[in-house]
Amino acid sequence: MQTQTIIASLMSSHFQATPLRQIFLVACGGSLVDMYPSHYFLSEQSDILRSWMMTANEFVYATPKALGASSLVIVCSHGGNTPESVAAAKLAKARGAATVTLTHNAEAQLLQWADHNLLYQWGDDTPVTDNPMALILSLCVDVLRQVEDYAGWQDFQQGFTQIDAVIRQGRTQVADRCTDFADRYQHDSLFYVLSSGASYGHAYGFAICSLMEMQRVDAASIHSGEFFHGPFEVTDNHVPFILLMNEGRTRELDQRALSFLNRYNDKTVVVDARELGLNALPASVVDYFNPVLFYSIMCDYRAALADIRQHPLSTRRYMGVVDY
Amino acid sequence: MQTQTIIASLMSSHFQATPLRQIFLVACGGSLVDMYPSHYFLSEQSDILRSWMMTANEFVYATPKALGASSLVIVCSHGGNTPESVAAAKLAKARGAATVTLTHNAEAQLLQWADHNLLYQWGDDTPVTDNPMALILSLCVDVLRQVEDYAGWQDFQQGFTQIDAVIRQGRTQVADRCTDFADRYQHDSLFYVLSSGASYGHAYGFAICSLMEMQRVDAASIHSGEFFHGPFEVTDNHVPFILLMNEGRTRELDQRALSFLNRYNDKTVVVDARELGLNALPASVVDYFNPVLFYSIMCDYRAALADIRQHPLSTRRYMGVVDY
Repeated sequence: MQTQTIIASLMSSHFQATPLRQIFLVACGGSLVDMYPSHYFLSEQSDILRSWMMTANEFVYATPKALGASSLVIVCSHGGNTPESVAAAKLAKARGAATVTLTHNAEAQLLQWADHNLLYQWGDDTPVTDNPMALILSLCVDVLRQVEDYAGWQDFQQGFTQIDAVIRQGRTQVADRCTDFADRYQHDSLFYVLSSGASYGHAYGFAICSLMEMQRVDAASIHSGEFFHGPFEVTDNHVPFILLMNEGRTRELDQRALSFLNRYNDKTVVVDARELGLNALPASVVDYFNPVLFYSIMCDYRAALADIRQHPLSTRRYMGVVDY
Repeated sequence: MQTQTIIASLMSSHFQATPLRQIFLVACGGSLVDMYPSHYFLSEQSDILRSWMMTANEFVYATPKALGASSLVIVCSHGGNTPESVAAAKLAKARGAATVTLTHNAEAQLLQWADHNLLYQWGDDTPVTDNPMALILSLCVDVLRQVEDYAGWQDFQQGFTQIDAVIRQGRTQVADRCTDFADRYQHDSLFYVLSSGASYGHAYGFAICSLMEMQRVDAASIHSGEFFHGPFEVTDNHVPFILLMNEGRTRELDQRALSFLNRYNDKTVVVDARELGLNALPASVVDYFNPVLFYSIMCDYRAALADIRQHPLSTRRYMGVVDY
């Protein structure tokens, strides 16, 4: 994969003299969401690498002291001109860090500050392994192989070859459910989205991007493990809960939330990675593929909702419309 | 302070042979919220220490590989018997880590797995420096002084001596505002809470504990930096926004959110650390004291809301009432 070439190149150049010790994952909104699985992966699997996941403006205004020549900063911006993301990449270079950027725009300002750039594919027919979430994960897996001889690397490669078929099959499985979901919840004005592990970032992403930004409905994400320590007190039938159930180590947390919701909520929407066949992937790495699956599956849920609500996914009233 | 004695003791015993390299901040709900400023502090100021902040059950089910003899695990539980927090401390000990626990209950199960315990004070008349948020921060500041000779340590000590007076004065300043807030928003059923920097954790905490758990109203936190990358599309006058404005490096992010809200929302509640006098603290460390101030100030806002809504802060329908 292209990510291997980039990481190998950085290892034999920039990180030859100053060994890689920090990885900063920096972006905004949906692009930041795409980084959560990588941050979660490094936090869980690395022996020595420090990992940060930061919204770009916080990285710029409250820059961590450790940023420097031994740092790799990965910056992603779909349009590639988000001012705070461009500023973050520029700052990273000024501090002597190596930068890898990801964008869908070959003319992006972001490219000015990139040691390497991945110009990624986008659209319904694109393999998810060419989308930023999987690409960033692949970069970090390649890094960990280089720095620590990460034992799961081969299983990851297998996962990357399997995931698209699982998603294709999964989308068929949920087609009718998406229509039912849209039909049933089209008039709801608030949604809670629950998940855990590597997928918590996508619970957040579905709430802030798919629902708040694209459908202009209120939403919030809740970590399945935190649910019982405050949030669950609001549970009754006034709000739908969307539960993204993981295959892997944190499934137990999602299962516990489901058991509770089954007793006290009649509007629970379950999207279960195991039932959708994700357990075909190697157990050692399956945790990190849950959000890749959920991203694609939930695109179909949101498309159905947009359709029935006659609120196109591209409609905005502020973003790119007014000054802010 | 007591925290210095504990850290010095660990440094000359447990971490003599295996130097401290990882700090895990592990808890649930409100106690986890109390750890956010420490995690943010270490992430921003440490050259080499890795820091994790994890809800206890995720720590137990998806334990990071790096946990071991060179790790300090800090576990906080108010009642001290939260099963997943107790399990987390037990696991930490089994992996050879050093543990510091914090609880308000001298008979807590948590104590079984503690190398050191801080039995903390609680209640309106307690100095905030004796509450868990400040104690955990103090532990981490002491750690950084020992491991990296952290230059801000003395300024932190000054901040700890100043913060209670700022809070006392601040509470007087907001007394009428709390009553107005409660009067005006008593019938609202959804709130957004915004902040950035070290205070983002308290935006989350006010949403999940003070509003969802204690008032049974819907709520969500939004990072001020992320607001413009999705969430702001829901902005109009149907929901109040509570903005916790920081003194320090990320103030710019909060200010930007405020400018937008001033144009598109008529229900914005601003709680401004600068206006409440936090800038009396040393500039090098003031960022980390924002959430300590906000915690106490927002207790008065929530008390006023509970009062007018006749929904006591201690009322629960699930927590400690049903099995889950």
